[in-house]
Amino acid sequence: MSSDNSGEIWLEQVKWDHDGLVVAIVQEADTGEVLMQAYMNRDALAATAREGYATFWSRSRSKLWRKGESSGHLQDVAEIRLDCDNDAVLLRVRQTGPACHTDRRNCFFQRLEGDAWVEVAPAPDCHEMQG
Amino acid sequence: MSSDNSGEIWLEQVKWDHDGLVVAIVQEADTGEVLMQAYMNRDALAATAREGYATFWSRSRSKLWRKGESSGHLQDVAEIRLDCDNDAVLLRVRQTGPACHTDRRNCFFQRLEGDAWVEVAPAPDCHEMQG
Repeated sequence: MSSDNSGEIWLEQVKWDHDGLVVAIVQEADTGEVLMQAYMNRDALAATAREGYATFWSRSRSKLWRKGESSGHLQDVAEIRLDCDNDAVLLRVRQTGPACHTDRRNCFFQRLEGDAWVEVAPAPDCHEMQG
Repeated sequence: MSSDNSGEIWLEQVKWDHDGLVVAIVQEADTGEVLMQAYMNRDALAATAREGYATFWSRSRSKLWRKGESSGHLQDVAEIRLDCDNDAVLLRVRQTGPACHTDRRNCFFQRLEGDAWVEVAPAPDCHEMQG
């Protein structure tokens, strides 16, 4: 993927790691619910800012993916924040449908109880799983 | 740091990266505010679960650090969550004092406005900066 964002100062200010990525945290803007965590490269962050929908870098598929591009579960971006040392991005979004590929509302549905991870949101059994 | 947690199944279930780390997101339990992002290794997560206060792995100092160990700004952990692919942890905490080392309430105080990161929380000018 070629980048046409090389001259943009705000993108230069992000502290990309040695793989060219930063951590991206996605939060529902209206409720504060943390929906998911993914990674962004320069092109993903530029696309997110330009288009207003969350786009990430898939490390497993080595490609950009706009969240919801196949499922329709888009993330309409209300705000993009950067942390104090410039290596983590917080997206405040309005999520269409479930954020998790398991069809749950968010990805953090395993809670530590004693010495076990317990699923606190049941798996939907009647919906098609969507990425 | 030797690990005495090698036999713990719940720690084995976490998908540690090639550096032995996972992303940790810290959220204020009562308000949903995302406070900061850090990293945990196995010992950090074990200590957090055992002691009830957030402990991370400092990549820059290559050591465990209990958040607030020098500043007193501890994070009392209400809940530990793990995401759907087991490679990100969400801590829901009650934060004492500011979470950010700049003395701001949270670390995500830079907002993208047009093509510039703008500080939306003023820097405290009368407090001692604390790690």
